Amino acid sequence: MPVGTLGSVKGISQDVLEELGVQILLGNTYHLYLRPGVETIRKIGGLHRFMSWDRAILTDSGGFQVFSLTHLRRVSEEGAAFRSHLDGSAHFLSPEKSMEIQIGLGADVIMAFDECTEYPADAQRTRNSMELTLRWAERCKKYFEEHKHEVPWANQKVRAMPDHTQTLFGIVQGGMNRDLRRESAEHTIEIGFPGYAIGGLSVGEPRDLTREIVESTLEHLPEEKPRYLMGVGTPEEIAQYAQSGVDMMDCVLPTRAARHGLLFTSEGKISIKQARYAQDESALDPACDCRVCERYSRAYLRHLYAANELLAQVLNTVHNLHYYLATMRTVRAWIRAGGGSGATDVPDVKSAYRP
Amino acid sequence: MPVGTLGSVKGISQDVLEELGVQILLGNTYHLYLRPGVETIRKIGGLHRFMSWDRAILTDSGGFQVFSLTHLRRVSEEGAAFRSHLDGSAHFLSPEKSMEIQIGLGADVIMAFDECTEYPADAQRTRNSMELTLRWAERCKKYFEEHKHEVPWANQKVRAMPDHTQTLFGIVQGGMNRDLRRESAEHTIEIGFPGYAIGGLSVGEPRDLTREIVESTLEHLPEEKPRYLMGVGTPEEIAQYAQSGVDMMDCVLPTRAARHGLLFTSEGKISIKQARYAQDESALDPACDCRVCERYSRAYLRHLYAANELLAQVLNTVHNLHYYLATMRTVRAWIRAGGGSGATDVPDVKSAYRP
Repeated sequence: MPVGTLGSVKGISQDVLEELGVQILLGNTYHLYLRPGVETIRKIGGLHRFMSWDRAILTDSGGFQVFSLTHLRRVSEEGAAFRSHLDGSAHFLSPEKSMEIQIGLGADVIMAFDECTEYPADAQRTRNSMELTLRWAERCKKYFEEHKHEVPWANQKVRAMPDHTQTLFGIVQGGMNRDLRRESAEHTIEIGFPGYAIGGLSVGEPRDLTREIVESTLEHLPEEKPRYLMGVGTPEEIAQYAQSGVDMMDCVLPTRAARHGLLFTSEGKISIKQARYAQDESALDPACDCRVCERYSRAYLRHLYAANELLAQVLNTVHNLHYYLATMRTVRAWIRAGGGSGATDVPDVKSAYRP
Repeated sequence: MPVGTLGSVKGISQDVLEELGVQILLGNTYHLYLRPGVETIRKIGGLHRFMSWDRAILTDSGGFQVFSLTHLRRVSEEGAAFRSHLDGSAHFLSPEKSMEIQIGLGADVIMAFDECTEYPADAQRTRNSMELTLRWAERCKKYFEEHKHEVPWANQKVRAMPDHTQTLFGIVQGGMNRDLRRESAEHTIEIGFPGYAIGGLSVGEPRDLTREIVESTLEHLPEEKPRYLMGVGTPEEIAQYAQSGVDMMDCVLPTRAARHGLLFTSEGKISIKQARYAQDESALDPACDCRVCERYSRAYLRHLYAANELLAQVLNTVHNLHYYLATMRTVRAWIRAGGGSGATDVPDVKSAYRP
């Protein structure tokens, strides 16, 4: 899932996203709650209509941003009080409030409000945090079941499916402790959700540890329901996690790296700002068939980046999104060909680029 | 002509420019000379190939930017010494140097190196400046005739026309003095160019004065050759100048205004940042058929602008370019229907937006 923080994948029009084959976008509840505010989006009929996007959307719970972007926050049993990173104004998010906002935004998949445990954290702190997330998950489910009919597109043709409502996913926490992860998974499953996410990773821990925790947690999550690993990763990691049994991932890496001139290619990463590309007439990735690689040279892309031209960010983002989406198409083909959970090989994410 | 200062119309990919119907772009010699430098572009085969743009390009002479952007400049008979606005490095532009650079960039139409007389300026200063521009025009023509075969795409298929070379336009100066303008026009015609530009306007003078000088200068320029008014204007001014007999114009207004949230519509100008649009579900211009107006609401565009999203600049620019290009299509239709120099009516630039 490409990240469209504020209802836009930075610099890319929705028709380009469609052409690239994006099937689902992630929107950030925290950011959309602050700007333009949930009431604006709710009144217009939800985020799909607001941003003119008919395909799927997932919103996160806002928890991760509250814990990573804000200061002066205070977490209690009730929820999290915090100050906006924009203007310092005071706000409060709770399981119920996060559900209310996410129902108002109207994404197809919404996420339970969780506490993202900091890294490192000791065993007691990790347990307390994990248990708080479980109690919050119950409150989320309760509020959601009672209010899901309030989604702004209920009974509207725009997302017409009989009895179609949003889908609420639970989130497994438990820090870097395998036993706490198992306990979190088991109790989250007891509460019962149509999909499960693994949260609280990519928070500064070593990559090997991320992998170990993901794999041990997956063992406790049902294979027949979507398993969503939040906030990863590189194209190679995506392939590895898919091989481990992860079904969904989101990451700002393709879009954020693009805006910093870091481009993913079938020959490895390229930092387009380097002077070595100033006269390089070849395509960014000669094996790539995206609009950028088919039309522009490395020399032009390097110039746009060096001159701080807006178009650099646009073109770099188009290419990186194409690369990630091609990676996911390879993963899907690999699954259809018999891969997936239990397979021992890893999808070859560069196979799409070989003749 | 939309302005593509550094070899890019800010934020807009060339395929979108083609779709919008852009036939010719303006590139700024001063900016391209500094970044990426003429050698980079020359070696790659010229600006068309560098930026992957097969349609026409015009480059200005660099003179206007030297006189408006740089400091510590010193103008002599030989040329203009100045320091870069980027890093303060020392440079020198002369008629010969400007030609050499513009031949290296390889635009279809290139401009003589002129001195843009400041406003206000007294009669003697204006005469001296105008006469300097005339002597520079002769030197430009001489250098161009001797070196035009050095254009990087000479004999290349990419711009294949037998004996096709660049076209050099002369520029009329003379400040706000009608007699000096006439004298400048007559002597520039004596030197002889395939097209003539009116420079030195839109430099701070009142709009009525601009109009008066343009109209009096046009009387002395041959109708059968392209007459190019540099650096104007609003859509209404474009229609007025077309009615006066101007054939070509360039302006940063549609693109620069777009990046500041100022949008041209058939109902007048809109400042999309205004809170009144926060809940406005209507199209930016309900009468417009551009991709932006067909897909997005004012509420969404207002949100993108208020949240400082990159996409705001992209979408606003697409719309404003569409509006300007629709204006020019109306002007062309008006000319084909019998308008043009001598006509007393003015093209109705909003007619394209009426059913």
